[in-house]
Amino acid sequence: MSNQGLIYVVSAPSGTGKTTLLKRVMGYFPEIRFSISYTTRPPRPGERDGKDYHFISPQRFQQMVEKGAFTEWAEVLGNRYGTSMDSIRESRSQGVDMILDIDSQGAIQIKGQFKAGIFIFIMPPSLEALKQRLKARGVDGQKVIQFRVAHARDEMKQAKWYDYIIVNERVEEAAEQLKSIIIAERCRRSRVLKGIGLRKL
Amino acid sequence: MSNQGLIYVVSAPSGTGKTTLLKRVMGYFPEIRFSISYTTRPPRPGERDGKDYHFISPQRFQQMVEKGAFTEWAEVLGNRYGTSMDSIRESRSQGVDMILDIDSQGAIQIKGQFKAGIFIFIMPPSLEALKQRLKARGVDGQKVIQFRVAHARDEMKQAKWYDYIIVNERVEEAAEQLKSIIIAERCRRSRVLKGIGLRKL
Repeated sequence: MSNQGLIYVVSAPSGTGKTTLLKRVMGYFPEIRFSISYTTRPPRPGERDGKDYHFISPQRFQQMVEKGAFTEWAEVLGNRYGTSMDSIRESRSQGVDMILDIDSQGAIQIKGQFKAGIFIFIMPPSLEALKQRLKARGVDGQKVIQFRVAHARDEMKQAKWYDYIIVNERVEEAAEQLKSIIIAERCRRSRVLKGIGLRKL
Repeated sequence: MSNQGLIYVVSAPSGTGKTTLLKRVMGYFPEIRFSISYTTRPPRPGERDGKDYHFISPQRFQQMVEKGAFTEWAEVLGNRYGTSMDSIRESRSQGVDMILDIDSQGAIQIKGQFKAGIFIFIMPPSLEALKQRLKARGVDGQKVIQFRVAHARDEMKQAKWYDYIIVNERVEEAAEQLKSIIIAERCRRSRVLKGIGLRKL
C-alpha cells in the first residue's frame, strides 16, 4: 500500500507575489515536482522554454485541447494556459508530490478530477497593494493593470472553496505558511497510516 | 466576526518524547496557551504545581468530577488526570489558541464536545524504540515499563481517528511537523475568511 503523490494547487491573482513565494518554498522541497504549464503566451525576458513554461503555438495548443491532453486549461488576456494530464498521472503513480500553479478557472477543473488535491489560495493584503505591486513590476501598461485588478477582485471571490488561504503581507511569513501547509498535509492520518502499513510496529 | 481560539489536542504513548516536542514547539508560539491538567499523581522531581500540572488530592479531584468541572478526565495507572472545562471555554472566547496534552481516552471526550478541535497523534518509530526510551528515562521499573508498552500498543490503535500523525523518529523533524500543523491550521479557509471579514479588500 504505497502512497500516491499529493497534488498541491496554488492560485493567486497576478501580482500577489506567487512566483517569488513558490521559488522560495520549492527550495525546501527538492523532491517535489513543479508542474510546467503549456502556454501560447510569448516568453517574458528571462523565461525559458521547458523550465518556466512549455511555450507552444496556438495551433499546437488547439490540437492538444482536441486530443484531451489537458487536465485543465484556461484563457487569460487572450493567451491560453494548460496542464498536461499525463504529467499529473505520472507523478501520482510514482508517489511524487507535485505543485501546480494555476488560476481558479483551472483549479476548479482539477478539483473535479482529483479529490485528493490540496487547494491553496494566495491573497494580496489589499487590492490597492496589488495595484502598487503590478505598477512596480513594470511589465504591464495601465490598461492591463486595471484589467488585472478587476480580474483579481473576481478571483478573490473564488477563495471561498479553497482549503487554505495565505495573505501575502510579508513574504517570509507567507513562505513559512506555504511550507507548513505542505508539511502538515504529509502528516495527515490517512497518508501516514498507509506509509506505516509497510513497517512493523 | 472574530475568530474563536483553536484547540490543538496532542496525544502520545508515554515515552514517545511528547514533552520535549511540546516544549520545543511552544517556544515558537508564545501566544498559544498550554492547558495545565489537574492530576492526583504526585509531582516528579522538577515538576512544579500550577506549571506542569495542578497537583490535587484524590478527594478534591472527585469533587471536581461531581461538579462537572472537567471537560475530560481519565485514570491511568491508578492516577487521575483531568482538563478544566472553564479554561478551554475561556481561551476559545478570548480567541486564544490552546494546546492540550492528553491521552486518547481524554481526547475522544474533547472530540465529542468541540468539533473544531485539531487532533494530533505522536507515534514512536516502533514499540521496541519506545521500550528503550522508557528504560533510558529511568523513571519506571520493569513492570511499569511492560505496562506502558502494552498500553502504547492499545493507544496506537486510536491513532486512526486523529487528524494528523507524527512519527517521532528524529526530534527536529517531528518538531518541524508539529509546528507546521499549527501554522497550517491557522491558514484554513474558514478561519482566514473570518479574519479578513474585519478588513476591507
